[in-house]
Amino acid sequence: MALNPADSAFLQTLEQRLGPSGLRPAAPADLEEPRGRYHGQAGAVAIPRNTDDVATIVRAAAEARVGLVPRAGGTGLVGGQVAPEGPVPLLLSLERMTQIRSVDATDNVLVAEAGAILADVQGAAAGADRLFPLSLASEGSARIGGLLATNAGGVQVLRYGNARDLVLGLEAVLADGAVVSGLRRLRKDNTGYDLRHLLIGSEGTLGIITAASLRLFPQPAELATAWVTVPDPTAALHLFLSLREALGEALSAFELMSRMGLEFVADKLPTTPVPDPAPAGWRLLIEAGSGPGAALMERLETALGAALESGLASDALIAQNEAQRGSFWRVRETIPEANRLIGAVASHDISVPVAQVPAFLSAGAEALSAVDPSLRINAFGHLGDGNLHYNVFPAEDRDRDAYAGVRDEVTRVVHDLVAQHDGSISAEHGIGRLKVADLERYGDPTKLSAMRAIKAALDPRGILNPGAVLRLPDQDEG
Amino acid sequence: MALNPADSAFLQTLEQRLGPSGLRPAAPADLEEPRGRYHGQAGAVAIPRNTDDVATIVRAAAEARVGLVPRAGGTGLVGGQVAPEGPVPLLLSLERMTQIRSVDATDNVLVAEAGAILADVQGAAAGADRLFPLSLASEGSARIGGLLATNAGGVQVLRYGNARDLVLGLEAVLADGAVVSGLRRLRKDNTGYDLRHLLIGSEGTLGIITAASLRLFPQPAELATAWVTVPDPTAALHLFLSLREALGEALSAFELMSRMGLEFVADKLPTTPVPDPAPAGWRLLIEAGSGPGAALMERLETALGAALESGLASDALIAQNEAQRGSFWRVRETIPEANRLIGAVASHDISVPVAQVPAFLSAGAEALSAVDPSLRINAFGHLGDGNLHYNVFPAEDRDRDAYAGVRDEVTRVVHDLVAQHDGSISAEHGIGRLKVADLERYGDPTKLSAMRAIKAALDPRGILNPGAVLRLPDQDEG
Repeated sequence: MALNPADSAFLQTLEQRLGPSGLRPAAPADLEEPRGRYHGQAGAVAIPRNTDDVATIVRAAAEARVGLVPRAGGTGLVGGQVAPEGPVPLLLSLERMTQIRSVDATDNVLVAEAGAILADVQGAAAGADRLFPLSLASEGSARIGGLLATNAGGVQVLRYGNARDLVLGLEAVLADGAVVSGLRRLRKDNTGYDLRHLLIGSEGTLGIITAASLRLFPQPAELATAWVTVPDPTAALHLFLSLREALGEALSAFELMSRMGLEFVADKLPTTPVPDPAPAGWRLLIEAGSGPGAALMERLETALGAALESGLASDALIAQNEAQRGSFWRVRETIPEANRLIGAVASHDISVPVAQVPAFLSAGAEALSAVDPSLRINAFGHLGDGNLHYNVFPAEDRDRDAYAGVRDEVTRVVHDLVAQHDGSISAEHGIGRLKVADLERYGDPTKLSAMRAIKAALDPRGILNPGAVLRLPDQDEG
Repeated sequence: MALNPADSAFLQTLEQRLGPSGLRPAAPADLEEPRGRYHGQAGAVAIPRNTDDVATIVRAAAEARVGLVPRAGGTGLVGGQVAPEGPVPLLLSLERMTQIRSVDATDNVLVAEAGAILADVQGAAAGADRLFPLSLASEGSARIGGLLATNAGGVQVLRYGNARDLVLGLEAVLADGAVVSGLRRLRKDNTGYDLRHLLIGSEGTLGIITAASLRLFPQPAELATAWVTVPDPTAALHLFLSLREALGEALSAFELMSRMGLEFVADKLPTTPVPDPAPAGWRLLIEAGSGPGAALMERLETALGAALESGLASDALIAQNEAQRGSFWRVRETIPEANRLIGAVASHDISVPVAQVPAFLSAGAEALSAVDPSLRINAFGHLGDGNLHYNVFPAEDRDRDAYAGVRDEVTRVVHDLVAQHDGSISAEHGIGRLKVADLERYGDPTKLSAMRAIKAALDPRGILNPGAVLRLPDQDEG
């Protein structure tokens, strides 16, 4: 059954229930997403103050059969936060639910509302001498609700896991307005189906996350960070395997950067302090952390010394202080911004088994060169997780619009290769609206039909983020 | 709609499809569970050779509307593996699906069929110089399918997480016989709802797990193990907190044992080499592991030295060799067997936030003494996870049958206290049939109704492990 638009009668009813400050008109920023591929329809934004308000909004939307598009930081890269078509939905922004309800350094648990900004959560943890390890480029604006709804990844997954691994419990509002009060602080709890993991990564289509109890970790007493040049991805893989042996789980980040990425940074953001601007080879940003007395810096030095001797690495800098460490990270974090300024033909967030990364990179370069030899590839990302941001750019003297005719083919070629390497077409960004058709093409049909059954069971009216993850029932295949 | 019994017509049809070796009559062992509270109804056991056979069995059961009770190692402690009432179900034993399909020491992934015994999986990992860290007393007979279906815990959760945290992908047969082919080897994969985590911990009620891709870890190059005496649980908690600071995530086990438990061992299994049989205080078995060069033994010695000096600990032995380490662990692993030989009035598998453990133990002793001052409490378990096996025993000169009249009250008192301490009534054993009513009493009603909706969506005929986790639709409240 079709949804109804969030018309003035609906908004009036809602305003009566929430009070006049519970709604505002959509601003331009509410209708955008970072890559500019989707533009939301103008409409109203509900701005709940608390979980009860969210429940009120969801109940009203369920009664009126109005679609709800939840919005946290708006930093998602797959269009999950904007509805460009269909009946005008109500946006539900978590911008006022920013409270960090508690920080407990004994139980290592922090409870945050869904609108809390990641950097603020990290800060609150640090204030209690604890680490909240979720870390990614948009941490200054991304909010907890969106990070969990999309199961965000980032640069410390290797050691601490994905966003879902950092969650002990959730509070959420389901599609009928009922509240799941699951803010547990327990390390073990086997009382029935794991609703928490079902909601995490469901991108707002099964429930609205309103708060979470998050795992904290000790701040690493020792931290060792290196910037390493390697001849090629195969050497990078072998260095990863040898450091994993030498450092065990202390290894927390192993980031790969192509020469192309550094050239983009030098071109578009020339004040960025690239530590080693020589053109050849690939770069790695490597970090390890541990408790006190583990002699981490010495162990990393020894391991990198062996790599230099054996030819796995051609150059290695170990950060001597926090400023140098920060400058290494700044280069890595600047690559996405440089990419935006260049303008990609197509971007892909893919993963393959770690050992397959070099083979995938060779095969990708060859296959794309057959599509159009002028395409430039900037592959970078989380080698230790097998997760690459595999972004394809126009030739230096051309605009991305010149490649409009091959764009879909580029993505098809990349995703076919991912499938051949037993990989995932969405490693850490999710499906959103961008990859609905890809999920249908590459996903397991049995899993997809189970997903549809779960969606129908938990959101029978289809009001929660309609068209994200799963195609609307009346939408044609694209 | 009611289920049908697995009658001879159904079994004949099934035998035609599976071949004559696909079924066998139930042996007594198929109808038992370790605590002897439930006895299954005699009937037939389907013994699939592979995933296709499982799909054939499930399809036949779905057509005939016959209940299926999956059985792996049969070691579960909540009666999930036996159906004592209702129409006679078909047992589905995974005993022939024991293959370890692959071990990959580069990607750190092992693929095992659901019937593989945990000790064999550990051994296959060790054979590739890797660690599969799931470890528990029944590892010699528990099988992967059951361990994942119940999200087993054990003694290394502190460092490596619960069973669900060790799974990269699942192959499973859903209630219509369709196969989810999800044996991924990826560290990051955000392509839709996480069916894996929904199946893990669903105790065979949403699908039959047939194989899993499991995470492997480096074998710890350094291992340090200590047997420590502390005056009380508060001292144990503070020692835990201080070791967590000193050793960080290297800390992999922090097991608490009451004096009562050691007395039971000395009484019933006197050849067990209890390292420090003096009567006073509580005992801790502490273990830490790390990569090479971390000076773990010295760091543990230093930390325990400080604890002895400050009075947090009154005695501490560090294992000097593998034999001594093994003997420490043997004592810990013998406690459940001694408990069985004594015969508990009531057993509870509970968790509370770690910092609440001492308060919970005080409150429990007081409340149970009010029920009957002759009751003896043996609380032991995974202090680092807040998970205690809180078992209540008769006085030395009495039999547990003498307490039949207070048994339900004992459990009610314990579980009420757990709820007051924001804890879980099932930390690592699951719900099975034993705790269905407890889940209804203590669980979040919104979560329960979402669970029922998911069950109805994925298993509309209700054939998968009927009566486990969720009450049968036509069952009265107990």
